[in-house]
Amino acid sequence: MLTETSPGAATATAAESGCEARPVLRRRAGSSGPGTDSVAQEAPVALVINGISYAVMMATPASLEEFAAGFVLTEGVVGARSDIYEIEVQRHGAGYEVALEVAQQCFMQMKEKRRAMAGRSGCGVCGIESLAMLDLAPEQVAAPWLGRDVAPAVAAAARELGRHQALMRATGGVHAAAWCAPDGGIVHVCEDVGRHNALDKLIGRLALQGADMREGFVFMSSRASYELARKATRMGIPMLATISAPSSLAIDIAGQAGLKLVSFCRQDGCVEYTLLDTV
Amino acid sequence: MLTETSPGAATATAAESGCEARPVLRRRAGSSGPGTDSVAQEAPVALVINGISYAVMMATPASLEEFAAGFVLTEGVVGARSDIYEIEVQRHGAGYEVALEVAQQCFMQMKEKRRAMAGRSGCGVCGIESLAMLDLAPEQVAAPWLGRDVAPAVAAAARELGRHQALMRATGGVHAAAWCAPDGGIVHVCEDVGRHNALDKLIGRLALQGADMREGFVFMSSRASYELARKATRMGIPMLATISAPSSLAIDIAGQAGLKLVSFCRQDGCVEYTLLDTV
Repeated sequence: MLTETSPGAATATAAESGCEARPVLRRRAGSSGPGTDSVAQEAPVALVINGISYAVMMATPASLEEFAAGFVLTEGVVGARSDIYEIEVQRHGAGYEVALEVAQQCFMQMKEKRRAMAGRSGCGVCGIESLAMLDLAPEQVAAPWLGRDVAPAVAAAARELGRHQALMRATGGVHAAAWCAPDGGIVHVCEDVGRHNALDKLIGRLALQGADMREGFVFMSSRASYELARKATRMGIPMLATISAPSSLAIDIAGQAGLKLVSFCRQDGCVEYTLLDTV
Repeated sequence: MLTETSPGAATATAAESGCEARPVLRRRAGSSGPGTDSVAQEAPVALVINGISYAVMMATPASLEEFAAGFVLTEGVVGARSDIYEIEVQRHGAGYEVALEVAQQCFMQMKEKRRAMAGRSGCGVCGIESLAMLDLAPEQVAAPWLGRDVAPAVAAAARELGRHQALMRATGGVHAAAWCAPDGGIVHVCEDVGRHNALDKLIGRLALQGADMREGFVFMSSRASYELARKATRMGIPMLATISAPSSLAIDIAGQAGLKLVSFCRQDGCVEYTLLDTV
């Protein structure tokens, strides 16, 4: 059961808007004046797994249960939704703490991994301190889009996405991750100051709802980087479409996994970087 | 002395272009065809400090000496340029290793910090696993811009930046960090798939050249996040200007430090988020 109670502490809820008002000074050529601006919230979010501190991420503090569920799934801390027993969000001063209870077997594996990494102080790639530890061999995903012209579905998603980006409209400062039906119809949208957080929130929501992630695709307002391709392949998602450009490593990971990667997605076209249907 | 030699291994140089060609399929309504696209390189870059693995970052493998110098400075591993003795870049398979020799005192402090963090497997905020470890109290920076209308300088930088974004023009997939004179004239530009990497490369270049970082400002093509504001304050940079939106925490950190934060920077105006001159 997922709970959101936090006795003795301010309770964070999924209803947090993710934005707040700040005083600003708008400067234009020849004139300037004070005003108010809506800015995207960014706050430290500590993930605590079975009582042990795991990581602190900077994220937009909305939908934090979904974020935490998605994070532990896409980072391989747990193997399946059913390994997540409980998620509890508490506010602590300027930050948030999300406490997860996960299956004992996952927790033991996590502790084992932590022991192997004792003494590290890394950052960057999650939990990695040397090249030898880097996992660049993604899981194989099914390829139901093989040979299909995905441009119409991508165009439909590109046409529709803006209407779902409430926080982006308010702040101009967040990324969106959308879950789309095979025809491009948008089913869910999650927003965050970090594109990888937005994707974790989306994947967390899908997992908590028991959705089949092989039956649709992810459409993102951002560029396609290593981390997005890696998180998608781990969940068996068959296609990642992004509005902006991909990196070389995102293309490599997608190609190895059989993940279809489509970027520069617009209403009138897109560019496919993994030529699954032409090789 | 900074070296770039790597006996017995392929040598990486600062001359790497940061982009590579990939086959693509361009899809337009009613037609599609194969082509070639330039994509931004993203590769794992391992930082090894005095022989000990420290972190792996995903970055564009160009200007890696500057990246490493900037990273250890902005993350507080070393206190000054003079603490960095040697930087050596080697290519290892799909990744890169940057070996730094730093002052023994910095290395001892780093090992001490590592011991205190033994067993962690965090990611996200650099080297942080719990909220209690998070440093949200930035250094104070001088405020030479106090009361000044920065719009003309920001407009000049905004007008000029595009001409310096060679990798962005080629790939559409990287951020730029520019060092600007007080009048907005652009002095240096560094590009990377990660905005924080772009800033680290810029700061590394300035540090290696012995530039005074209080005498100019940083102009970035990206949004303003916590990490950018924090890295800027650590170096005593007095102003951070960004083309896109700031996050709440970037505004908070800037306000506490006396860093002027200006966002939505365009040729015809900008928005100041830290009202240093009106309080």
